[in-house]
Amino acid sequence: MEKLRATSSLRRSLKSILNRQLSSVSEPRYLNGKRSCQPTFNLIRDHRNLGEANPILYRCFSSVSTVVQRNPSFSTLNPDDISYFKQLLGEKSVIQDEDRLETVNTDWMHKYKGSSKLLLQPRTTEEVAQILKYCNSRRLAVVPQGGNTGLVGGSVPVFDEVIVNLGSMNNIISFDKVSGILVCEAGCILENLISFLDNQGFIMPLDLGAKGSCQIGGNVSTNAGGLRLVRYGSLHGNVLGLEAVLANGDVLDMLGTLRKDNTGYDLKHLFVGSEGSLGIVTKVSILTPPKLSSENIAFLACRDYSSCQKLLMEAKRKLGEILSAFEFLDIQAMDLVLNHLDGVRNPLPATMHNFYVLIETTGSDESYDREKLEAFLLSSMEGGLISDGVIAQDINQASSFWRIREGVPEALMKAGAVYKYDLSLPVEKMYDLVDDMRTRLGDLARVIGYGHLGDGNLHLNVSAAQYDDRILEQIEPYVYEWTSKHRGSISAEHGLGLMKANKIYYSKSPETVKTMGSIKKLLDPNGILNPYKVLPHSLNS
Amino acid sequence: MEKLRATSSLRRSLKSILNRQLSSVSEPRYLNGKRSCQPTFNLIRDHRNLGEANPILYRCFSSVSTVVQRNPSFSTLNPDDISYFKQLLGEKSVIQDEDRLETVNTDWMHKYKGSSKLLLQPRTTEEVAQILKYCNSRRLAVVPQGGNTGLVGGSVPVFDEVIVNLGSMNNIISFDKVSGILVCEAGCILENLISFLDNQGFIMPLDLGAKGSCQIGGNVSTNAGGLRLVRYGSLHGNVLGLEAVLANGDVLDMLGTLRKDNTGYDLKHLFVGSEGSLGIVTKVSILTPPKLSSENIAFLACRDYSSCQKLLMEAKRKLGEILSAFEFLDIQAMDLVLNHLDGVRNPLPATMHNFYVLIETTGSDESYDREKLEAFLLSSMEGGLISDGVIAQDINQASSFWRIREGVPEALMKAGAVYKYDLSLPVEKMYDLVDDMRTRLGDLARVIGYGHLGDGNLHLNVSAAQYDDRILEQIEPYVYEWTSKHRGSISAEHGLGLMKANKIYYSKSPETVKTMGSIKKLLDPNGILNPYKVLPHSLNS
Repeated sequence: MEKLRATSSLRRSLKSILNRQLSSVSEPRYLNGKRSCQPTFNLIRDHRNLGEANPILYRCFSSVSTVVQRNPSFSTLNPDDISYFKQLLGEKSVIQDEDRLETVNTDWMHKYKGSSKLLLQPRTTEEVAQILKYCNSRRLAVVPQGGNTGLVGGSVPVFDEVIVNLGSMNNIISFDKVSGILVCEAGCILENLISFLDNQGFIMPLDLGAKGSCQIGGNVSTNAGGLRLVRYGSLHGNVLGLEAVLANGDVLDMLGTLRKDNTGYDLKHLFVGSEGSLGIVTKVSILTPPKLSSENIAFLACRDYSSCQKLLMEAKRKLGEILSAFEFLDIQAMDLVLNHLDGVRNPLPATMHNFYVLIETTGSDESYDREKLEAFLLSSMEGGLISDGVIAQDINQASSFWRIREGVPEALMKAGAVYKYDLSLPVEKMYDLVDDMRTRLGDLARVIGYGHLGDGNLHLNVSAAQYDDRILEQIEPYVYEWTSKHRGSISAEHGLGLMKANKIYYSKSPETVKTMGSIKKLLDPNGILNPYKVLPHSLNS
Repeated sequence: MEKLRATSSLRRSLKSILNRQLSSVSEPRYLNGKRSCQPTFNLIRDHRNLGEANPILYRCFSSVSTVVQRNPSFSTLNPDDISYFKQLLGEKSVIQDEDRLETVNTDWMHKYKGSSKLLLQPRTTEEVAQILKYCNSRRLAVVPQGGNTGLVGGSVPVFDEVIVNLGSMNNIISFDKVSGILVCEAGCILENLISFLDNQGFIMPLDLGAKGSCQIGGNVSTNAGGLRLVRYGSLHGNVLGLEAVLANGDVLDMLGTLRKDNTGYDLKHLFVGSEGSLGIVTKVSILTPPKLSSENIAFLACRDYSSCQKLLMEAKRKLGEILSAFEFLDIQAMDLVLNHLDGVRNPLPATMHNFYVLIETTGSDESYDREKLEAFLLSSMEGGLISDGVIAQDINQASSFWRIREGVPEALMKAGAVYKYDLSLPVEKMYDLVDDMRTRLGDLARVIGYGHLGDGNLHLNVSAAQYDDRILEQIEPYVYEWTSKHRGSISAEHGLGLMKANKIYYSKSPETVKTMGSIKKLLDPNGILNPYKVLPHSLNS
């Protein structure tokens, strides 16, 4: 598309470009995060295996340069433990089957693998409380697990921890149509909640690619961000209450259903984003926005990163209250998606574009919102910020646009080895890091940048035919140091898990980390909850 | 105004009613919360005064039925302490002048009065750290103080605590126009921040009547709610980071400027709403929304509470993304304002209306927003939800509408004795409590209901010629029991302070309160920070 200048006839032609008909694309809108994406690698190596009593002492995950020592204070399972759990939960909820254990021991990317011998599936808070009380007294380590869609090794065991999967606690407890407040159990799958609310005329304030598998308890425990944060803010704002079970089995009922409640310390926030290391979230109360009738999605091309950034500033001001997503991907990400995902195609003519932006608006007035979006896009084209663009004409086209953006992680998995970094950075600096990494890596690997531009969240991915220490050495610690220097976050939304537990100091001060350690010690003195994760290993020694 | 039915000619007349010209009202928009409102009562009684070494052992605040014993483990000030502080802060920031101490010892409502002999005014975080380190080692109790506009006795001493006022730390540190992120010191007055941002094209995500005096550090420490919560959510969502000084003088730098940061426990939330009892907030980073060009305000009358509630549900759905305030007051509140505040008048004809609702919309398109609001109001009038209404035609009228709503606390103060309750309740139950209280109190006192209907937040006020134990006995514990029975909060936004520290169990479970106590003990082992407040006194014994 040529460079455009503003004339009234041109305005008409721009409008027709934006509204041009696309051939129908019938791809599902969302990557559902299920195991259909087969792993290409499994990098786990057991350094030592000293037999049954101490099955594994050390583990090295070469992709994350992490050597972990099994905490010697933890017990190992014995037949009495199994009997106790069977009596408590019933035979069916105490799982020792090897195939099923293989699945829950392994993360979605098949990068992390534990060797747990026991999966428990409680159905009530009381059962979770009894499990933890017992494990705490026996010093059996525990991994709380939801949909197991995490990307940092947080939801699978490192050694032989007991896996407590919340999937059987999947009841919706109440929904108040006056206030829009939903109360449900932690094991509810996000997509099921979205469907339930849709029927009630409401939406979830969060949405993410893994919605088909991830559970709300896991979303809350990891403070999941996703695609709607730019509009509805983080879970710290939207979660009104929760119930959590502490390591000693105490149940904290903080399941408020009020928008405002200033009675004492708001402890629920400790459990939002602490990745199951302070307690197991068993119930959640969440504020859901009304479903607005009008949703529009535009897929746009920008010549350079600076244009993307200016477009964001303009969108925040001119689309203001209707802006609900502002996502970007670079041409390398687009190429990956086009090459590796079946049925996905670029909705824009195959001119060379360096960047693509997906803008979604959500409002209550179909014609007004559409006009407003069109006016914004026209002025942005006239101003040279957009070099091409198209507005979805129907739900299928809208889905196909989302499929491109949400398909990037799947395409990366299919392309080979991938080193994933999830960074928060000042928007104006964000893409400099991608450029720097390209320079550093040269021909060693491809560098892909995409993410939630509206939130300052870059997903930096390095893709190669296979994992290679020479690549990793070029990436780490450089990427963390770069992020730290610009006061960014080394984990915007994925959490620290096992992968980045020792990297916390790049984003948090020593005094703050020390205080985190004190709180961990206070709430989980034996350290049984999700050990080796989140906090640096040196804190435990 | 008569009951209306929908015809097209009627639509026109409705529109002219809504847009009718009001005589200009030049009242300032906001009650500024300063001391200009003179108190009518001072209910503090010292039960015993045992001389200099232990100046006061017990204090009874009859308005809150609270008897407090001075913690015997606290030291009393000696000349060496004063010398130390003078050396640290300089003579001018160490204040012993009786008149100035009188002011900072007394709360805005003149209900609570301490007997502190020392006011410190640090200018830097380092000075705050040194003060606390010293006080902690000497076991000198401390009250952190901002604008001292609180309503629950949280910001003044109970006995002889050292007052640390943050007012001299009032610098704006940075503002990023791309992200809208403001970083400033805790002592910045809210109204000054609002003015600063206005020049930059942004707004603060919170706004409240006390804006002329209250400080952002106090807002954050009390998790202030206010008038914009329905649109922008609570400070837990908007505060991106903060710096806090712990009791031992450790400085926790959590001053992130990122929308997303999942690196470890999000400890800043412990300091949001803990009323200065876990640490002193010294700096704040806050996400500010862009200022949108179009603001409309309607002042409406409803026949009954049920209509107010239905109107809220309709407004959430039909005004959706532009709704920015939904406030209500009952006729008793309106009468008080009209009788006690100079220059305030009812913008609606003097027909009998039982309820008044103030709706504000904020959006980016003047003509569209106005049309949308008008359409909503017309359909609500046709549907019988609104019995009369008017839309502000200019900024003066808008200010005069806000003046009515924001003038209620001031009018209550002028009317005599007032018992104030700040409750969160399910919207559908909220006004039942007001009716119940009227039945209970009969001729003893007037019961006034108003508040943030959009957030489910009722300000229940009982007004009488003078304080009277018979009145209090009718109110408490009934009002707390009623609230607890409906799973409400006994403090929606005011906090617990001294007034409700012992009432916490009405809204929080014993296990949760116990955990709060453990965290207090962890972060402030000597209990020097804002003692006797927030947590029940039994936890400290």
